[in-house]
Amino acid sequence: MIQKYVFGKPIETGAVVQEIPETKSEILVMNQNVMEDKVVLFCKMEEEDIIYGLGEQVRGINKRGFSYISDATDDPIHTEGKHSLYGAHNFLIVNGRKIFGIFVDNPGKVVFDVGETSMETLTITTGKDCVIYIIEGESLKEVVKQFRQLIGRSYIAPKWAFGYQQSRWGYENEKDIREVVSGYQENGIPLEAVYLDIDYMEGYKDFTVDKEKFPKFSEFVEELKEQQIHLVPIIDAGVKVEEGYSIYEEGIANDYFCKDEEGENFTAAVWPGKVHFPDVLNAKAREWFGGKYRYLMEQGIDGFWNDMNEPAIFYSEKNLKKVIEEISAMKDKNLDIHSFFYLKDLVCSLSNSSKDYASFYHNMNGRKICHKDVHNLYGFYMTKAAAKAFEKIDPEKRVLLFSRSSYIGMHRYGGIWTGDNHAWWQQLLMSIQQMPSLNMCGILYTGSDIGGFGGDTTKDLLLRWLEFGIFTPLMRNHSAAGTRKQEVYQFGDTTDFRNIIRIRYALIPYLYSEFMKAALEDEMYFRPLAFDYPEDKQAKRVEDQLMVGESIMIAPVYTQNAVGRYVYLPEEMLMVCMTSPEEKRFEVLEKGHHYISVSLNEVVFFVKKNHVLLLAALNEKVKTTADLEQASYEWIGYVPEKAEYLFYQDDGISKKYLSKKNWKVCKFTKEDFSNGYLKKEN
Amino acid sequence: MIQKYVFGKPIETGAVVQEIPETKSEILVMNQNVMEDKVVLFCKMEEEDIIYGLGEQVRGINKRGFSYISDATDDPIHTEGKHSLYGAHNFLIVNGRKIFGIFVDNPGKVVFDVGETSMETLTITTGKDCVIYIIEGESLKEVVKQFRQLIGRSYIAPKWAFGYQQSRWGYENEKDIREVVSGYQENGIPLEAVYLDIDYMEGYKDFTVDKEKFPKFSEFVEELKEQQIHLVPIIDAGVKVEEGYSIYEEGIANDYFCKDEEGENFTAAVWPGKVHFPDVLNAKAREWFGGKYRYLMEQGIDGFWNDMNEPAIFYSEKNLKKVIEEISAMKDKNLDIHSFFYLKDLVCSLSNSSKDYASFYHNMNGRKICHKDVHNLYGFYMTKAAAKAFEKIDPEKRVLLFSRSSYIGMHRYGGIWTGDNHAWWQQLLMSIQQMPSLNMCGILYTGSDIGGFGGDTTKDLLLRWLEFGIFTPLMRNHSAAGTRKQEVYQFGDTTDFRNIIRIRYALIPYLYSEFMKAALEDEMYFRPLAFDYPEDKQAKRVEDQLMVGESIMIAPVYTQNAVGRYVYLPEEMLMVCMTSPEEKRFEVLEKGHHYISVSLNEVVFFVKKNHVLLLAALNEKVKTTADLEQASYEWIGYVPEKAEYLFYQDDGISKKYLSKKNWKVCKFTKEDFSNGYLKKEN
Repeated sequence: MIQKYVFGKPIETGAVVQEIPETKSEILVMNQNVMEDKVVLFCKMEEEDIIYGLGEQVRGINKRGFSYISDATDDPIHTEGKHSLYGAHNFLIVNGRKIFGIFVDNPGKVVFDVGETSMETLTITTGKDCVIYIIEGESLKEVVKQFRQLIGRSYIAPKWAFGYQQSRWGYENEKDIREVVSGYQENGIPLEAVYLDIDYMEGYKDFTVDKEKFPKFSEFVEELKEQQIHLVPIIDAGVKVEEGYSIYEEGIANDYFCKDEEGENFTAAVWPGKVHFPDVLNAKAREWFGGKYRYLMEQGIDGFWNDMNEPAIFYSEKNLKKVIEEISAMKDKNLDIHSFFYLKDLVCSLSNSSKDYASFYHNMNGRKICHKDVHNLYGFYMTKAAAKAFEKIDPEKRVLLFSRSSYIGMHRYGGIWTGDNHAWWQQLLMSIQQMPSLNMCGILYTGSDIGGFGGDTTKDLLLRWLEFGIFTPLMRNHSAAGTRKQEVYQFGDTTDFRNIIRIRYALIPYLYSEFMKAALEDEMYFRPLAFDYPEDKQAKRVEDQLMVGESIMIAPVYTQNAVGRYVYLPEEMLMVCMTSPEEKRFEVLEKGHHYISVSLNEVVFFVKKNHVLLLAALNEKVKTTADLEQASYEWIGYVPEKAEYLFYQDDGISKKYLSKKNWKVCKFTKEDFSNGYLKKEN
Repeated sequence: MIQKYVFGKPIETGAVVQEIPETKSEILVMNQNVMEDKVVLFCKMEEEDIIYGLGEQVRGINKRGFSYISDATDDPIHTEGKHSLYGAHNFLIVNGRKIFGIFVDNPGKVVFDVGETSMETLTITTGKDCVIYIIEGESLKEVVKQFRQLIGRSYIAPKWAFGYQQSRWGYENEKDIREVVSGYQENGIPLEAVYLDIDYMEGYKDFTVDKEKFPKFSEFVEELKEQQIHLVPIIDAGVKVEEGYSIYEEGIANDYFCKDEEGENFTAAVWPGKVHFPDVLNAKAREWFGGKYRYLMEQGIDGFWNDMNEPAIFYSEKNLKKVIEEISAMKDKNLDIHSFFYLKDLVCSLSNSSKDYASFYHNMNGRKICHKDVHNLYGFYMTKAAAKAFEKIDPEKRVLLFSRSSYIGMHRYGGIWTGDNHAWWQQLLMSIQQMPSLNMCGILYTGSDIGGFGGDTTKDLLLRWLEFGIFTPLMRNHSAAGTRKQEVYQFGDTTDFRNIIRIRYALIPYLYSEFMKAALEDEMYFRPLAFDYPEDKQAKRVEDQLMVGESIMIAPVYTQNAVGRYVYLPEEMLMVCMTSPEEKRFEVLEKGHHYISVSLNEVVFFVKKNHVLLLAALNEKVKTTADLEQASYEWIGYVPEKAEYLFYQDDGISKKYLSKKNWKVCKFTKEDFSNGYLKKEN
């Protein structure tokens, strides 16, 4: 049951798709305190209560013990102490005596104090104009399903986007890309996409391609596509201020950019230098900006990543001018230590300053709205702009699209990646923990930068990260300019890397089926154990294992130099250890605690009792997701009695999704696995 | 067996105390490559080899998989990606087919690439002038013991410094200190020291006390001492440039400060604003600076912490002037994005700049030496200055002394704390992992800022951190100005905190005995499990449990919201669970893997078979370590056969340490524990 409570005059965010009648009474499951400038909701948490949700945030699956602030921020240092990352996912679930979800639909800053100030108290503080949805249900799964129906069906990527993808900030030109492609091909490692980071553009101008670096871009796109490799360019939020640059000129001519207090186009600086921000909250400007993606699509591009759309601001013109003036005034003065700290703070607070966010405006249906009040919508609407344009260009084609910044609602238009993480083991664990939280909020097509974006990766970290990454829908290796090269062929012998990525491909029939089911049925692809085993007190506490789809549980290794790890099995399960798609080892483990050995080149997962999964039996010809159609299958099953599996298969590119009744039902009995745990399909 | 290899013309660092004849042949256990400007040592590591050591560094007990750089740095963000912290502890142990230690005695930058570049290769790169010691032994313990004998006996703190200590940057004056004292007293929580951070000084001038804040300082010191509470002031490295300030004037008059290229006193800026650095590498200047501690000791002070002695530099006068000039030149120019990054970098690289470190000089026995070549010695010699002065003032009295920066050799003069950590769970784990690494290098009196220095702590983090902190010799709660208050009475009901700190006091007879044995016998107080169970392959891999002294093993909980954890027992042990000194629960657990429940208010440890430990039976009168003399004892023992315990007891303040044969031998048989695991002493 969903109840909708309206406070003040909320801005229509587009987060929800269902019409829910407003409940006029007070909220029952939480206390409410409506003040002049804010609404505060609070409730007591019992010691054993667990709080789920909040999507892209730091810390564990259980969000207790910290304060999280929805305030989209371009901050690449994702330590435990950070209150905000790139997204704003204002949904959480209280798993206590009562199970209920809370969605705070407010696109400004929202603070979730989940027992930081007082361990026993959950306090949510939001701006005075907001809609609060309370979702009650019998189970965690049911609460999520209701919420997901409320916010609408999740974005579905094309099937090729489930292949292995390589990215790096620093691939400058055709030559660099070709080098990457041959690096993979020569080592017999599947590769399905190469990303173009900001370097491909002409002066970092959106919807341009540098002609010196890519003299025949569309031919190059075509050439790669013949090898079934997709080029995926980045699109940044800011439009370069440059006379004669058509996007800039059109934006100026039509008043499509955000304005400052005085009604002038607001000028910030990002990669291209000075930019204006397209007012994606203005329907006309949004349609115009979205239309610009066509330029690249016409050259064969069928995937994009939207970046810098918090929007990130290196500095605003006004602010920098002021700072330089202040520093100039210090010249020839005898500075004390306070002046030094003042100077340092002046410079360090230039980027992503809340003052800048409070200094520009949107035109939403003719209404002038200060950016700070809708800050968390920018990435959502930039991505919606693109998705709506794709629908026009080719209504039935799936285009790859994901974004850095997001708000609930954007999940209908694209996925996200979890931003500019680091090559730290701790971030591998964090990305494991983020996955189910994101799934609750509808974000299914997601993954982290495998190997870590910032800092130098190591071979062992990259291997372990891949061993988790083979289960994330978006499986992309990405790194920053200036860091150690981290394509998998940069670390000597490539055997282990090839085998792990080939295991991904063998798993795709299962992973894709499960992704499609989650998307089409409003379910979660990654789930905390508590969602499947609500009665198991131990399972509730597990923070480093996940259910993936209906049949399996994963327990990735995420600590350096480890040769194994502890695993909790909420029921008897079949452990599957793979060092390649062909080399599998099986062992039935009983319910309870186990220490399992997991060597550096090994993928381990667990199959639930009376469950199966299907693997593509790879052969030499299978190099991409499309080739999987030609592969035969084998089933891994732990079937002491019987099992049933719903196999989802479609063309992978059109939007002709099968309805549940058309899914292929595969039935198994004990006898099918009388020779062990493997059944070959012919 | 220790072998000494000399390369070039090394600077005498004072790290070692034993005369070892030089070996003229090549190093046998590693390959050596002597180049014009550096010496490179390298060897192959087998997959199962484990590398220990390096003292204060990030990442695990097993140092494999990363590069560590000895280059003392004031950097408070101790993420996994950091290559240098505050100390330089150039000792590591290869635990492979051969067991050997390597000590690189070079006070400049040394790089330890422990399998980062290539997983199989250990590479050490040091300046061309250095002494390399290779220590071979039959066991890890033996290698450490030999190394410790080489570098001399570790600093021994007075016994009161094993009591609970409270600190915060921001205790401004008498009133603030009194508030802290009553906060503890009113809640019946032991407290034995309160720290004075930089706020107590007059204008941050060393060896001054602000008279407005502390009008009658010596009386105040006395008043607290009557309550057995010690005030522990900070001493910073830099001496304020201020005419009329006696320390400054004396330093100038006698040429006791470090000089720049032109022979002028080098001017940096730190807390007081402009400072000169006392040239602690110059014997005369060192004696002079050390003598200044007398001013505070004469007012009753008997403990100090030396800080900012990497030395930290906020900026140098010359550098800041240049930066402001450059920024001024940008005024009224149309800046592009590169200018912005250039500006940002100019300001961000002002602090702790290697250019500054290369721009000033020491006078070592008449020899002019560039600071960068001896950078890692500064904290060591500042601390030696103090310790040598204490010896003169009162040769037989132990004075509390610890430092932020350090080098091997300093361990003879003082302890360290692990610097400005953060209120992150990950940092609790890091501090657990640092302890045995520090002990190997001789640093026994040590601990981390409990609760975390930077960032806001939470009640649960503070509780868990204390549950580990009760085992560290230095047990200090410390936090930064501007963070949430973290004295233990700031979180509502104090019962759990009181009980945990009282458990510390009950444990002191054991912990102090074990500390003294480790110091007097050149052994380790904290040990990785592999040191005690070298044949156990599983024990070798344990990264989050430690042996503490001869009888116990600890397994702290270091993850948020955990209600327990996995523990590996290398042999059958007695689990002891305590919620207060009076409430104990016992359970014998068999060798192997276990999941144990540990609630938030619980201290859990494990007693080895046929081992005992003694606990003080606290009563109302026991409020300090000194009061423990009046307490009766009880023994916890797991004695299926018999046990023997060497109990160390001294006056806690004089340097009249007992030799081994005078330690009290306590013998136990099975019958002593016929009623269970507890034996009361009368």
